[in-house]
Amino acid sequence: MVEIYKKIIGIVAEYNPFHKGHLFHLGKARENKNDAVVVVLSSYFTQRGEPAVMSKWDRAEAALGAGVNLVLELPAFFSCHNAGIFAAGAVDILAATGMVETLSFGMEQPEFDPTPILDILVHEPSHFKDNLKKKLNSGFSYVKARAAALEEIHEGWGAFVSLPNNTLALSYMERILRKGYSISCRPVQRMGSGFHDTDLENTFPSAAAVRKALAEGNREDAEKALPSSTVRILNRCIERGMVVLSREMLWRLIRFLLLRTPAEELARSSEMTEGMENRFLKYAVLCSSWSGFVSKCTTARYPRGRIQRQLVHFLLGIGHRENRELQSSGPQYIRVLGADAVGMEILRKMRSTAHLPVMGKAPAGLRGEGLLLAGIEQSAANVWEELTAVFSPGEEKKRYPFMEECFSEGENVL
Amino acid sequence: MVEIYKKIIGIVAEYNPFHKGHLFHLGKARENKNDAVVVVLSSYFTQRGEPAVMSKWDRAEAALGAGVNLVLELPAFFSCHNAGIFAAGAVDILAATGMVETLSFGMEQPEFDPTPILDILVHEPSHFKDNLKKKLNSGFSYVKARAAALEEIHEGWGAFVSLPNNTLALSYMERILRKGYSISCRPVQRMGSGFHDTDLENTFPSAAAVRKALAEGNREDAEKALPSSTVRILNRCIERGMVVLSREMLWRLIRFLLLRTPAEELARSSEMTEGMENRFLKYAVLCSSWSGFVSKCTTARYPRGRIQRQLVHFLLGIGHRENRELQSSGPQYIRVLGADAVGMEILRKMRSTAHLPVMGKAPAGLRGEGLLLAGIEQSAANVWEELTAVFSPGEEKKRYPFMEECFSEGENVL
Repeated sequence: MVEIYKKIIGIVAEYNPFHKGHLFHLGKARENKNDAVVVVLSSYFTQRGEPAVMSKWDRAEAALGAGVNLVLELPAFFSCHNAGIFAAGAVDILAATGMVETLSFGMEQPEFDPTPILDILVHEPSHFKDNLKKKLNSGFSYVKARAAALEEIHEGWGAFVSLPNNTLALSYMERILRKGYSISCRPVQRMGSGFHDTDLENTFPSAAAVRKALAEGNREDAEKALPSSTVRILNRCIERGMVVLSREMLWRLIRFLLLRTPAEELARSSEMTEGMENRFLKYAVLCSSWSGFVSKCTTARYPRGRIQRQLVHFLLGIGHRENRELQSSGPQYIRVLGADAVGMEILRKMRSTAHLPVMGKAPAGLRGEGLLLAGIEQSAANVWEELTAVFSPGEEKKRYPFMEECFSEGENVL
Repeated sequence: MVEIYKKIIGIVAEYNPFHKGHLFHLGKARENKNDAVVVVLSSYFTQRGEPAVMSKWDRAEAALGAGVNLVLELPAFFSCHNAGIFAAGAVDILAATGMVETLSFGMEQPEFDPTPILDILVHEPSHFKDNLKKKLNSGFSYVKARAAALEEIHEGWGAFVSLPNNTLALSYMERILRKGYSISCRPVQRMGSGFHDTDLENTFPSAAAVRKALAEGNREDAEKALPSSTVRILNRCIERGMVVLSREMLWRLIRFLLLRTPAEELARSSEMTEGMENRFLKYAVLCSSWSGFVSKCTTARYPRGRIQRQLVHFLLGIGHRENRELQSSGPQYIRVLGADAVGMEILRKMRSTAHLPVMGKAPAGLRGEGLLLAGIEQSAANVWEELTAVFSPGEEKKRYPFMEECFSEGENVL
């Protein structure tokens, strides 16, 4: 068989939704136009601790429509976790394909050489470790404590690691180094708006700006920022009611659950530390919206993202035990969300190169941590479906990887 | 002080919502136009196992507007239970006022003398008891088994006790007899539509018909069946979004909760018997609506009302233990939802006649079963608020008994 691609580039993405900025990055990620791109895509809940606008299946289809060749699932356990766990899960999956040679990711100041920072993060010299602990004890969040400790080692490092995209970029590189994966890194300059920027007037608006426009019913403006493939799929999802645009239902479910959960049970939920459960229960009674509640619970030590992720963990029934087990076990399977012709070719090769079982429709025959991971994934699907505009449950079990039609007949690639 | 009323008549009602048929019954219930009427009113969830259209506070206000003098709360534990528990709780509360002399209720064939039936129900002779057990074992529901056993004793009894209003009427009379309350019974002919009739064209349409019209957005037709006081309060509630007209949110909450509850935990929920939990869990995954789910779970043995009540118990966190304890303890306090001038006068007298503590805004200083009952009531308020069109939590704690203004200043009646 003829080699129909050159290099295989890996990308970690949420595509929530896939917009023109992502398209630009995709173009930059391919050194050669024949390079193949494998994306590991966030599941139903994102790294910020929020439900995705569209299901993972629909976001995967949009990615394929924009030129991605293969989309793999980043299970909800990893996709809705702190930068370290998120990145570790995603990089592990890309590495487990045995095919990805290069990881491409956005970074501010990509000309900056992060090697000395990574060296400290990976080897954790005692002066750094002690200082980090001191900062943590004084009430900083992990990200801020780390930035402060690095800043004391070298001026400017604190600012560099504080930018959200750099936090993720460092986490990817750190994981590759720690695990000794033979994956090279190719940071590209992040274009346009910042991560949380909600201004749509930029050449490359952020996904947050697109989501905001959609939530406000301003589809026309949102569509300006999206490639036609996303527009088509998004419109289909909106028509079927399979979108999550508001936080109202999320808040009703969380509040409902909080009000029926005793503090000692809530304390067993993943990442619940230092009596946060009492804070949660106190404000659950008082607040009438998700954003109001999260704001009340947010502190210098526990930033918004952390609070939101904890609430999602609680919704998904992830406890301390599950959190510990899955962090240490890492991903247990590679689940395919979609592939084009090139992606199918990569999947064929993965039969001999992959270090984890490759799965399609629904993970089966799992045990231990794999079963746990798949159970949490099913919970994430159930909860996400509850949040959609029109309630039609069971999609997760009905959907299957989106494959190029020419390949799907007769041949069982997975 | 001058006696401003003659007799005190008790009524057990849901007023969901208060319609012209209720107004007619109210007129019939008063033998003398100076008779006072005390209503014990269902809380947030009804005997059929459904959320009420309006909060108990708003329904109480509508009842006062239509001429009821005093409205007492039937706590959610009793209001959302089988006919026996519902009636026992309601009659106990009316009796505990120490003021109610007569109970008025709707009945089909009020000329029929139910004394011999009541005699059997109260004394449970062994031939009846054995036969009832046999019918139950053969798969009948309790109501059907009882009807069949009575029919074998006397032709026609089965048909009489099977009519929903007669089931309740017998339950009231049975409780009065069992407890030896000195309350006389005054059955009145039920007018117009049957209990579940959804036709609005009758002179006296059923509350179900009104709810159906409201759910379909047909306010004009619904209003034809309602006295002006109900219309005013209902419109206010609709404008504020404080109504529960659809079952969509209820289904999302129940399904969400079922899918995260293991079978062995669900088995501990109130009234969950004979492995019903497995049936619930099986269909929760498959069904996309409340009515679809309830239909799937309904059997000859477990009719619709029973299934719905069980689901509400599960939502409210009522387990077998709470169910047992509160059935045997009965009501622990009398909570006032509203009163007019006459009602205020009755409340004053109740200071010396009542056998249970009389409470207003929020039950306080409770212990044991009283605390349990009030806790379930607060859960019912929380869940009901989650179901409303516009989510604005905490109303239960903000509301207070609706009192005639002339009496509310300065004087602390409660």
